[in-house]
Amino acid sequence: MVASNHRFRSITELWLGGDHYKWRALRANGVPERLVTGSDTSDWEKFQAWAATVPYTLRNPLYHWTHLELKTAFGIDKLLNPETAREIYDACNDRLQNDSAFTARGFMRHYHVETVCTTDDPVDDLRHHRAYAAEQANSESTKMLPTWRPDKAMAVEDPVAFKAYVERLGAAADIDIRSFSDFVDALQRRHDFFHDAGCRLSDHGLDVFYAEPYTDAEIAHIFNKVYSGTSLSDVEVRKFKSAMLYVFAVQDYNSGWVQQYHYGPLRNNSSRLMRAFGADAGCDSIGDLNTAQSMSRFLDRLDNEGHLAKTILYNLNPADNEMVATMIGNFQDGSIAGKIQWGSGWWFLDQKDGMERQMNTLSLQGLLSRFVGMLTDSRSFVSYPRHEYFRRTLCNLIGNDVEQGLLPFNGYEEQRVRQMVEDICYYNAKRYFDF
Amino acid sequence: MVASNHRFRSITELWLGGDHYKWRALRANGVPERLVTGSDTSDWEKFQAWAATVPYTLRNPLYHWTHLELKTAFGIDKLLNPETAREIYDACNDRLQNDSAFTARGFMRHYHVETVCTTDDPVDDLRHHRAYAAEQANSESTKMLPTWRPDKAMAVEDPVAFKAYVERLGAAADIDIRSFSDFVDALQRRHDFFHDAGCRLSDHGLDVFYAEPYTDAEIAHIFNKVYSGTSLSDVEVRKFKSAMLYVFAVQDYNSGWVQQYHYGPLRNNSSRLMRAFGADAGCDSIGDLNTAQSMSRFLDRLDNEGHLAKTILYNLNPADNEMVATMIGNFQDGSIAGKIQWGSGWWFLDQKDGMERQMNTLSLQGLLSRFVGMLTDSRSFVSYPRHEYFRRTLCNLIGNDVEQGLLPFNGYEEQRVRQMVEDICYYNAKRYFDF
Amino acid sequence: MVASNHRFRSITELWLGGDHYKWRALRANGVPERLVTGSDTSDWEKFQAWAATVPYTLRNPLYHWTHLELKTAFGIDKLLNPETAREIYDACNDRLQNDSAFTARGFMRHYHVETVCTTDDPVDDLRHHRAYAAEQANSESTKMLPTWRPDKAMAVEDPVAFKAYVERLGAAADIDIRSFSDFVDALQRRHDFFHDAGCRLSDHGLDVFYAEPYTDAEIAHIFNKVYSGTSLSDVEVRKFKSAMLYVFAVQDYNSGWVQQYHYGPLRNNSSRLMRAFGADAGCDSIGDLNTAQSMSRFLDRLDNEGHLAKTILYNLNPADNEMVATMIGNFQDGSIAGKIQWGSGWWFLDQKDGMERQMNTLSLQGLLSRFVGMLTDSRSFVSYPRHEYFRRTLCNLIGNDVEQGLLPFNGYEEQRVRQMVEDICYYNAKRYFDF
Repeated sequence: MVASNHRFRSITELWLGGDHYKWRALRANGVPERLVTGSDTSDWEKFQAWAATVPYTLRNPLYHWTHLELKTAFGIDKLLNPETAREIYDACNDRLQNDSAFTARGFMRHYHVETVCTTDDPVDDLRHHRAYAAEQANSESTKMLPTWRPDKAMAVEDPVAFKAYVERLGAAADIDIRSFSDFVDALQRRHDFFHDAGCRLSDHGLDVFYAEPYTDAEIAHIFNKVYSGTSLSDVEVRKFKSAMLYVFAVQDYNSGWVQQYHYGPLRNNSSRLMRAFGADAGCDSIGDLNTAQSMSRFLDRLDNEGHLAKTILYNLNPADNEMVATMIGNFQDGSIAGKIQWGSGWWFLDQKDGMERQMNTLSLQGLLSRFVGMLTDSRSFVSYPRHEYFRRTLCNLIGNDVEQGLLPFNGYEEQRVRQMVEDICYYNAKRYFDF
Repeated sequence: MVASNHRFRSITELWLGGDHYKWRALRANGVPERLVTGSDTSDWEKFQAWAATVPYTLRNPLYHWTHLELKTAFGIDKLLNPETAREIYDACNDRLQNDSAFTARGFMRHYHVETVCTTDDPVDDLRHHRAYAAEQANSESTKMLPTWRPDKAMAVEDPVAFKAYVERLGAAADIDIRSFSDFVDALQRRHDFFHDAGCRLSDHGLDVFYAEPYTDAEIAHIFNKVYSGTSLSDVEVRKFKSAMLYVFAVQDYNSGWVQQYHYGPLRNNSSRLMRAFGADAGCDSIGDLNTAQSMSRFLDRLDNEGHLAKTILYNLNPADNEMVATMIGNFQDGSIAGKIQWGSGWWFLDQKDGMERQMNTLSLQGLLSRFVGMLTDSRSFVSYPRHEYFRRTLCNLIGNDVEQGLLPFNGYEEQRVRQMVEDICYYNAKRYFDF
Repeated sequence: MVASNHRFRSITELWLGGDHYKWRALRANGVPERLVTGSDTSDWEKFQAWAATVPYTLRNPLYHWTHLELKTAFGIDKLLNPETAREIYDACNDRLQNDSAFTARGFMRHYHVETVCTTDDPVDDLRHHRAYAAEQANSESTKMLPTWRPDKAMAVEDPVAFKAYVERLGAAADIDIRSFSDFVDALQRRHDFFHDAGCRLSDHGLDVFYAEPYTDAEIAHIFNKVYSGTSLSDVEVRKFKSAMLYVFAVQDYNSGWVQQYHYGPLRNNSSRLMRAFGADAGCDSIGDLNTAQSMSRFLDRLDNEGHLAKTILYNLNPADNEMVATMIGNFQDGSIAGKIQWGSGWWFLDQKDGMERQMNTLSLQGLLSRFVGMLTDSRSFVSYPRHEYFRRTLCNLIGNDVEQGLLPFNGYEEQRVRQMVEDICYYNAKRYFDF
């Protein structure tokens, strides 16, 4: 749980702990694992390795982020390299260790963060959220809300892990789960619990969309089979995932939430790193599976039954950009502007080029003016300037268009252009999310 | 049939009737269906909704087209927005209702349209074409020709609809169709009929190309099966479509026509809109199926047998651009320059970015100088300035290259650059199509 | 074998013999086959056809290459067109016929070529390499090394051709091949032989990667089956290819070589051209098969077992760029900087746009600074200026960034930027390849 008053022992902990994007750069630069994730190294050694790698990241967003963070969080204008490493290390650590504004919460205040949404499993008791909410009641500090991420409830590839998960879910929901129907009831109870805690947002991590035809009887049977410890066939796995995506989506619709789908990674590619560190070790990459048809069938079923919640689709492979940009247009129903959204450049695409391509393609195939703007899944407490980076990228695009005479900028249209920029940066999201 | 002297009752009818691209923008902007396609609304109400949406389409080609059409068709320089809506509405309607030049044919004259090709089903009796041709004989007005679009002759997914279609075809061809062989004969007779009416062009709408191996006996059997009302297996459907694509292609080759393939959409994604409006309701989008191998096999069979007609391939997903740009090079046979063409940016790609990407990739992988230029499938009578938009986009590309010193522009080469631009805008198409 | 003192009889032989990229342009320009590859035509007739086609290749890299080669090899500044054709033809031929510097070796000296790697089959006796090496010992002339290209050792689709190949391999290795185990031994013996001849590099041509699960017993059985003349099923072919890719990779790892994978073409699309000319007739194009999962599984198995050699991946479809750019990051292990490389724009992508997209995407997803730069598979003795073309393209990218303030260029960082450019142009490759 992130919303703590945690004090960071060093810039190394703040910057390099768990940042697998930086780990990848270190390894690509020939830095041995000991200095990347090793436990027998000092914070300074790791920082030194990072400082020596940073000049090799020129043209990579890490170079931008590194210096944007040094400047906006610590007021440091110097470029990080082996010559400046010690000075920057000491200056940052001094603040982190001695200045009470340089805590997790302090950074959020500093960056004027209005709302943070964490990512939480349905079995999570949200105790930190409840404590924080009680403590912050009536204050004007950052709002902290949970996000519903039920990926494990469809991870039936591993019967043992799935059974264990169902048992934890049953305990959390206080339901003795004996059937698929109980399972859905337990999820609904937890969904209600999350709703009471302020959750208005779900998130789903997918390789592809699933929209296989199935019957309720089949799903009941598949649930019993996997719950009893038997491995499923590929077809059964796909049917079950199809059923779960539908169940999740209807629950979200019924509660008036926004549902998000992040799809397209190829995860855990290196068995060696997985063995050493588990998931999120820095060995995920961009997949190339086709999914337009199943994405369409999934959304169509919901739309057709009147169960389609506000939806944001995030693709990881930019080769899918035009496909997704036009897909959202199929299911806009006129109920609210921009009901179906194409999410901002995500993960590997969360940088200037990825953002520009997303915004340019959205402009051509849909309404940029209704775009809810950037969500980052960065987990660092100094990554908030990525929003500034997004806003600057947007303003650069629009400003160039105006300068080149590609956009009108007089009278009514000047006002529209100005409002569009403000909407994408702030107001569209504020209106879209019911926080 | 389009070649009428139809007088438009309002700019709403001219602009919004059947334009599902605009419908998508309206829905994405949160406009309720009543104001998009509703029958209980006035033309002014719908125009108002569109005028309020236009300022939200900034950076979308709809913004360009809207104003290019207002200017070139009506001489209106103002930007459309809620403040100018009434004035523009009244001015346009005044012309449409009172000026005899503002009819369908009037627009074609105004835009110097030499030839229009409509899209027609093989069963169509082409009565309007024949009447128009008789009426226009010896005049210098726009030539109006049919295009052969036999998609329904391979739509065997629905046995009932297919049987009904075969019966209509038999009646049109005056052949009692009892076998696949009769079916092909009937198509050939209609093909000849179209040829007599001036048709020199076919068009085929595909999700992917089909090039399954099959035997004549299999196809004869599949035809009997589906014609007797029995549903086909997936394999049978693919074999039948493979056979029909081959039959169509050989017929075109034998008559010296140009054949066009538009492939790659994912159609009718919203069951809700389909139920309400049928096809072309604005819920089609870009698909992501792989088809290089079947496209190659299909073209190779024709090339190998000496039956490959002049061919234009249009892809809808720009992720396929390089694949198609290099595919055409495999089957150029030196018989005429640019025999196999990669079609200009189509549908969702029929805008500046899509056109530029197509022309840049064609330049890199083939001969831009042999490109037959733009065909638009827009059905509006004021969409002709899209050709101007294409020509300006081309000239902008070439002009920038010359300015930057990327193209030679002296003596022989200056003449070549000038001629290339004129060829792409006009002469290549004139030479390529045998109208 | 290329390292000869061959004297070219004309610029036609030097330029048009075997250059299927130029053949494609000629055919697309409507030049009949007689003037492209015909044997009953004079060199001058073919050159004339090419000179008439060149002005139609504006914006194609052929236009750049043609004039870069005329200028750097022959000192000719004129643009090739029908008016200059005869003069240029005569001037080039005069040099080729009368100047002893205008031979294959002469061009390599002229272009300061340090090392050339030819592509050789495991059965090749490398006699020319050995003769050349003996002759050049202690000289400072171009180093000439073989590259191991064992594609035929996995081409089991054709049992007859495969059996003949195995027999040639057995003869070359002096092993009586009776089993899969013998087959692997024979390959290893040839691998050692290549190593002794200075080979440090393998190359593999693939449509997709193969990483099917298999057992040793299955592979032994499949080998016996195909060797006895029986056709294999699709699954057997995939299993065998999976096994061979693994065998090849382990052999390379054990010898400390660099392994290269060129994947993604769709080959021999025109049966007509294949029949007339065999492979490499100019009818290959870009494929669209998905392969991220099998690529990942293949690399993971090697990485996991500690058998992953230095590796370069070349994709042919730019739609895969981001997938490959992120894939290499999964398997960087910190042992050396840039151990897994994404190869420079290859074949259809071996031009300014393809190179820029590769370098820009590599910058965003990895470390451009560790890039080993350009390898071209061009087989022409005057194609060396393509390296200059690459270096200019790189310098243009970096220079623009510096001018626009997108890269720091002062003190430590100025030195880093300068070094990065030199590294990509020369030093990274020198360090990476153990020649």
